[in-house]
Amino acid sequence: MTIEFATQYRDRSFIPSEPGKPYFIEKGMGDRAHLFNDIFTIYAGGEQTENTFNFFTCEGPKGDIIPAHSHPDTYEVFYITDGAVRLFVEDLEGEQHEKLLTVGDFGFVPKNCPHAYRIERHHSRIVGVAAGPGGTFERFFETLGEPTGELGLPRRTVVPEPHKFGTVPQRYDVNFLPDHKWRTGS
Amino acid sequence: MTIEFATQYRDRSFIPSEPGKPYFIEKGMGDRAHLFNDIFTIYAGGEQTENTFNFFTCEGPKGDIIPAHSHPDTYEVFYITDGAVRLFVEDLEGEQHEKLLTVGDFGFVPKNCPHAYRIERHHSRIVGVAAGPGGTFERFFETLGEPTGELGLPRRTVVPEPHKFGTVPQRYDVNFLPDHKWRTGS
Repeated sequence: MTIEFATQYRDRSFIPSEPGKPYFIEKGMGDRAHLFNDIFTIYAGGEQTENTFNFFTCEGPKGDIIPAHSHPDTYEVFYITDGAVRLFVEDLEGEQHEKLLTVGDFGFVPKNCPHAYRIERHHSRIVGVAAGPGGTFERFFETLGEPTGELGLPRRTVVPEPHKFGTVPQRYDVNFLPDHKWRTGS
Repeated sequence: MTIEFATQYRDRSFIPSEPGKPYFIEKGMGDRAHLFNDIFTIYAGGEQTENTFNFFTCEGPKGDIIPAHSHPDTYEVFYITDGAVRLFVEDLEGEQHEKLLTVGDFGFVPKNCPHAYRIERHHSRIVGVAAGPGGTFERFFETLGEPTGELGLPRRTVVPEPHKFGTVPQRYDVNFLPDHKWRTGS
């Protein structure tokens, strides 16, 4: 059960290439990608669940708020296992909310709700599930950023090539909102 | 955003009664239920995600292996945030596997695969996602066991009334396998 597989995403992955197989992945050993200053690690994706859900983590350093965005067809969970993360969400009536989430706290972002977060402590980790009736979108991070075999945070900021912003977000149900303003004050 | 709601499941819940609303839930404050010696806490269910996925935790004391069971239409994630849990899974070819999962480790159980687990350290916590094309089944725990407003483990073992075993598992896609034997040796 510690076999590695060649999949459509990786030469070596602990996620089986065929669906329907049970598997175990030790901490940090999922399919990894660097994007900006964070590392995203996929443990399960749409291929494993008949496209119903995925499961991944995001680890990052204390830093700036990420760009506001929404997902027209995707619901998203934020569950904190390490550190502290401030989650910003705007509801469908336009009311904005923010909350500092720490270990064991949970945030839920429905489809179409603008949202962003700011990692507020070094060594923070978010567990994420992002899925909806249209499928799952876990390969967004490595398609906009870079797949990696490394285990830690990026050694340099991984800035996507500009042309990717014109095609990748749409393919993965991500709608960036460059003019969005957070009025919650933090 | 710290409003409580009356829902179809609870007089007071931090999960909004209407879908489409963002929300935050602090650690341990989801919809809770006691079953045997464990506490299950739901943070999101099918109503929030158009029936694509749920998100819950299971906390329990060090104890015996739970009864072997399978889910004909449900994929299940085990992600450990505290303690240690030994996961037993049989694949569709009948081969059995087990692995001691500790903090940050992940296990994936496809539909129809017999499985069970044994909590191997006190104060362990499993994050679970259990869903499939047929929907989500997070209310199994409180329907077989008991909803609770308490925050900790059950003070007494919550044994379901016998008649419930004849109806509840089927409604929630749970197939108990009383004759199943684990031959993995642990």
